[in-house]
Amino acid sequence: MIIVLKPGSSEADIEDVSRRVRELGFKTHLSRGEVRTIIGIVGDDRAKEQLLALQSLDSVENVVRILQPFKLASREAHPDNTQFKVHGVPVGGDQIVVMAGPCSVESQPQLTAVAESVKAAGAHVLRGGAFKPRTSPYAFQGLEEEGLTLLRAASKSTGLPVVTEVMEPDKVEVVAEHADILQIGARNVQNFSLLKRVAECGKPVLLKRGMSTSIQEWLLSAEYVLAGGNPSYTLDLNAIPVVKKLSHLPIFVDPSHGTGHWEYVSAMAKAGLAAGADGLIIEVHNNPAEALSDGPQSLKPTKFAQLMAELRPLAQVLGRTL
Amino acid sequence: MIIVLKPGSSEADIEDVSRRVRELGFKTHLSRGEVRTIIGIVGDDRAKEQLLALQSLDSVENVVRILQPFKLASREAHPDNTQFKVHGVPVGGDQIVVMAGPCSVESQPQLTAVAESVKAAGAHVLRGGAFKPRTSPYAFQGLEEEGLTLLRAASKSTGLPVVTEVMEPDKVEVVAEHADILQIGARNVQNFSLLKRVAECGKPVLLKRGMSTSIQEWLLSAEYVLAGGNPSYTLDLNAIPVVKKLSHLPIFVDPSHGTGHWEYVSAMAKAGLAAGADGLIIEVHNNPAEALSDGPQSLKPTKFAQLMAELRPLAQVLGRTL
Amino acid sequence: MIIVLKPGSSEADIEDVSRRVRELGFKTHLSRGEVRTIIGIVGDDRAKEQLLALQSLDSVENVVRILQPFKLASREAHPDNTQFKVHGVPVGGDQIVVMAGPCSVESQPQLTAVAESVKAAGAHVLRGGAFKPRTSPYAFQGLEEEGLTLLRAASKSTGLPVVTEVMEPDKVEVVAEHADILQIGARNVQNFSLLKRVAECGKPVLLKRGMSTSIQEWLLSAEYVLAGGNPSYTLDLNAIPVVKKLSHLPIFVDPSHGTGHWEYVSAMAKAGLAAGADGLIIEVHNNPAEALSDGPQSLKPTKFAQLMAELRPLAQVLGRTL
Amino acid sequence: MIIVLKPGSSEADIEDVSRRVRELGFKTHLSRGEVRTIIGIVGDDRAKEQLLALQSLDSVENVVRILQPFKLASREAHPDNTQFKVHGVPVGGDQIVVMAGPCSVESQPQLTAVAESVKAAGAHVLRGGAFKPRTSPYAFQGLEEEGLTLLRAASKSTGLPVVTEVMEPDKVEVVAEHADILQIGARNVQNFSLLKRVAECGKPVLLKRGMSTSIQEWLLSAEYVLAGGNPSYTLDLNAIPVVKKLSHLPIFVDPSHGTGHWEYVSAMAKAGLAAGADGLIIEVHNNPAEALSDGPQSLKPTKFAQLMAELRPLAQVLGRTL
Repeated sequence: MIIVLKPGSSEADIEDVSRRVRELGFKTHLSRGEVRTIIGIVGDDRAKEQLLALQSLDSVENVVRILQPFKLASREAHPDNTQFKVHGVPVGGDQIVVMAGPCSVESQPQLTAVAESVKAAGAHVLRGGAFKPRTSPYAFQGLEEEGLTLLRAASKSTGLPVVTEVMEPDKVEVVAEHADILQIGARNVQNFSLLKRVAECGKPVLLKRGMSTSIQEWLLSAEYVLAGGNPSYTLDLNAIPVVKKLSHLPIFVDPSHGTGHWEYVSAMAKAGLAAGADGLIIEVHNNPAEALSDGPQSLKPTKFAQLMAELRPLAQVLGRTL
Repeated sequence: MIIVLKPGSSEADIEDVSRRVRELGFKTHLSRGEVRTIIGIVGDDRAKEQLLALQSLDSVENVVRILQPFKLASREAHPDNTQFKVHGVPVGGDQIVVMAGPCSVESQPQLTAVAESVKAAGAHVLRGGAFKPRTSPYAFQGLEEEGLTLLRAASKSTGLPVVTEVMEPDKVEVVAEHADILQIGARNVQNFSLLKRVAECGKPVLLKRGMSTSIQEWLLSAEYVLAGGNPSYTLDLNAIPVVKKLSHLPIFVDPSHGTGHWEYVSAMAKAGLAAGADGLIIEVHNNPAEALSDGPQSLKPTKFAQLMAELRPLAQVLGRTL
Repeated sequence: MIIVLKPGSSEADIEDVSRRVRELGFKTHLSRGEVRTIIGIVGDDRAKEQLLALQSLDSVENVVRILQPFKLASREAHPDNTQFKVHGVPVGGDQIVVMAGPCSVESQPQLTAVAESVKAAGAHVLRGGAFKPRTSPYAFQGLEEEGLTLLRAASKSTGLPVVTEVMEPDKVEVVAEHADILQIGARNVQNFSLLKRVAECGKPVLLKRGMSTSIQEWLLSAEYVLAGGNPSYTLDLNAIPVVKKLSHLPIFVDPSHGTGHWEYVSAMAKAGLAAGADGLIIEVHNNPAEALSDGPQSLKPTKFAQLMAELRPLAQVLGRTL
Repeated sequence: MIIVLKPGSSEADIEDVSRRVRELGFKTHLSRGEVRTIIGIVGDDRAKEQLLALQSLDSVENVVRILQPFKLASREAHPDNTQFKVHGVPVGGDQIVVMAGPCSVESQPQLTAVAESVKAAGAHVLRGGAFKPRTSPYAFQGLEEEGLTLLRAASKSTGLPVVTEVMEPDKVEVVAEHADILQIGARNVQNFSLLKRVAECGKPVLLKRGMSTSIQEWLLSAEYVLAGGNPSYTLDLNAIPVVKKLSHLPIFVDPSHGTGHWEYVSAMAKAGLAAGADGLIIEVHNNPAEALSDGPQSLKPTKFAQLMAELRPLAQVLGRTL
């Protein structure tokens, strides 16, 4: 971090700011330009948040961050890719991992039909929502605990591990009992209470990027999970090569929510692989026109099977397996 | 809601879509244009979310919403302004309500100093954070329950009611015990689990608008609180005349977070009143350069007193009182 | 288009609005819901802009557009893909077209070196800026007419056709003399005077999408060019499958400007092809660290050749040629 | 500007980067942190754009700008407010300047009626569009030169100076002949060819902020005009106190385009004054429901007169005159 002083700052101003920095436990390094003096700050970056308050001093023009504020999520601290297995499915290596299933778990027959079809098409993980974040209080809110039980049953009968969303801290325990991967939805990417709780649960976490969350904010949310002691960890979406450069964590793409319409899912799934994603998460429904949520963006099972057939040679050309 | 069919839809397509609409309990109204057929849908709007799934049919081009999807928050359903009192402070009437205090509660001496100074300057409600949502896990996270106790004590000694943020559902009970108004932060505006819980607590709720939340999404979040049975309710910020037209709820402006810098707080506080806000929420700190959070945007007590003195004649010219 | 009346509108209100619509040359179609009356409007959509003014009537709640406002650019009016040739290079068919070259033309030796290297790597079109839109008036503004002459010479010696940006209407003639494709930059996507002029020049136009331009606004800008009588036409960038569904026009991806950093260009070029783009436009420079513009996002010739080698099998898997 | 080197950079790397900086005419200042070396750059900021290309070197992590890139527009270079007169109307002083009139000039009777009514209500400048930037090529494009003639006539008969938009460089001359202030629209805020031309015309320029233009980009566009030698200059809209702190230029607010709906114009005009604007620009039409453009956001003359009556005491409370 560096502190830029206003032009015309006196020696007393410079000394006052420097003293405050030293009192917070950092060393300073002075640099006098033609017009402005700059104070460089040396020391552990994680504690530097506190220095931002110095912006309120009359003599300070700006406090500028030089380094990324996350550590555990950074590639600098952890040069190798993170790799781990979920029920035998390798995540973060050459293998492209496909998670597929309905937006909402609606009933036992619906979930069974979809789970069997995505397994037959080659998906590796079953997705399905039991707790649903809905913009309107009048929309279907999910089957809740009953949905978790149905997911666990579908997992047993197909052998596919299960990923599902958790929305509030005091549901983390029950969701972690039934699911193999916990998803944090886009609206909760900065729900820090929830992040702290899932960090402790010991299961891998799929952390969606919020609609207006910067990549830095997103990786800081990942940092919450890593700082809580949860070692295996996954991400999804968008700015893939940037995150791959900044961080060692696996990245997933969600072409269903990314586009909002099934006709675009296939193109964006391919684009995600080509951009370097480690896996996909795709909504599949046996009867989209009557889906209780996200019908317009769900693939029918036959369309999903066709997509998988098209993704395989693509993965091969990209030096990955599927 | 209306359903726009693709050009060239057959009579069978039209009948198929119409039948699906009727099976969901709505009446249809057919309108044939030169190129496209449109199906109008008559019935209770709150149940119409389900119709969006029909977009996945091959014959449907688009499903277009005609009415606002919120009811209880709408001015149409409730033409008069919502007015209520918090410990004798009238909210939503001619009286401009000013909430002021530190971003974070840091210590008993800090809170007492600030509370006494904002009371002397004419503030009506004491604000202060006990649970802090911080982007970085390495930043100060708040005094938590101890902060609540300090807020309650400062409220007793000054007579000012207290507003503070609640971040997770299972803290609603303890926060509601200590605070008079519960604040939902910008990052939690779509934390639906939290909204449902505060809806039941019986205390007024100050619901911030999320950084990328549309006005419609914001009012739908308000709808969650109102639908849960919580009758007294407040909002804050930005698109004031639009929300005033769409809804009867009081609106507050937060010039501290809206600008992020104390030098701009005064201009934006005045602009908020001029735009029609019912009140303000302002961060005040006795020593901003050492504040544990939001130092750069906090006013010193003397600056706050000066702002209040400038706001009073402004309120009068606008036909309000302060 | 439909007009939604306010609840409680009288018969006289309905008749007043309907009469105004009919006076503008449209037929009306009345639909009475439980709460609101809706007036559907039948007739040529291109003239309907005028109806938006009716929103200012007291009895009108909203005027809602049902159809896309562009015609010539739409796939509905022109179901087949647009295909054409530029100096023998087929655009819009199975062939992936790669345009490559420096951001700015800086000197004859620089342009020659880059042009020969991109030709050797298999590029089809030479790109290079002679007129440069720079955010700061103190940044390099391009070689202007001299740059055009250098581009034409490089085109002659390599056989590659040339694409370059035109920034103002009275330069269209001279740019069209020297270039084979005219590029409209992102900042000029709604420079309607410029669009009208290039529409008349008879050369293909590469129209970039503005940073905050919606897809609808972008296609309306394309409509300006098509309405001016220019039949061959290209686009570039982002929301590829959506535009491919809405329009028959070829789409190009610009991974250099889309990412702003050379390390991400390769991943995004691949993603663009996988998403369905008809071609790429890529910045290549023989000495990026001394480039007068866009150094950080330019590929060195060897990196570009390596990218082309990786793109060829990818194009094949996607059923395209390169 | 400072250059942040990657961790592990060798002495040779540091010397290579430093040498390149010196070759561009700057002095360097080395600062070695625990993990990273930072090279500070001393010298004229306007020439530093060129240094951004160094980001493409393997040893460079980032090039960070410390100072604002604009000079002539900055308050640092010009501490006093810019003040000037347009036909006797003082701009940039205590006087609030109100510009009002129709969006488009449609006919002589329409313009005369509106011009007389806004003059009677106390407006200082007549606004009206002769050249209209319209998203759709099928919408009304303005009366063009005929509109300029009508504006000049209305100016003569009312004594009000005239502001109107210019959209392309080769129309600057004719517009400057008929108008007293030239407006650059939001879509042209980065049309640099146009900015250079209006900079030379010697008339004051009203430069709108583009929809997605940052404050820095906006002030750089102002810099284009100032660098071209045009000394009197005005701006409009949004982030008023920020721009007032960064720059000495007068700022106007456009509540008509800022809100898009006449019902919100009054609230936002008041908010603009309260935030510190130097003037307002407001659309007024004698028959909004039949306006050829922007009907929904135009005030009727009686509503405009009422707004002026409400603004006068507000200006007084704010220490300004109107």
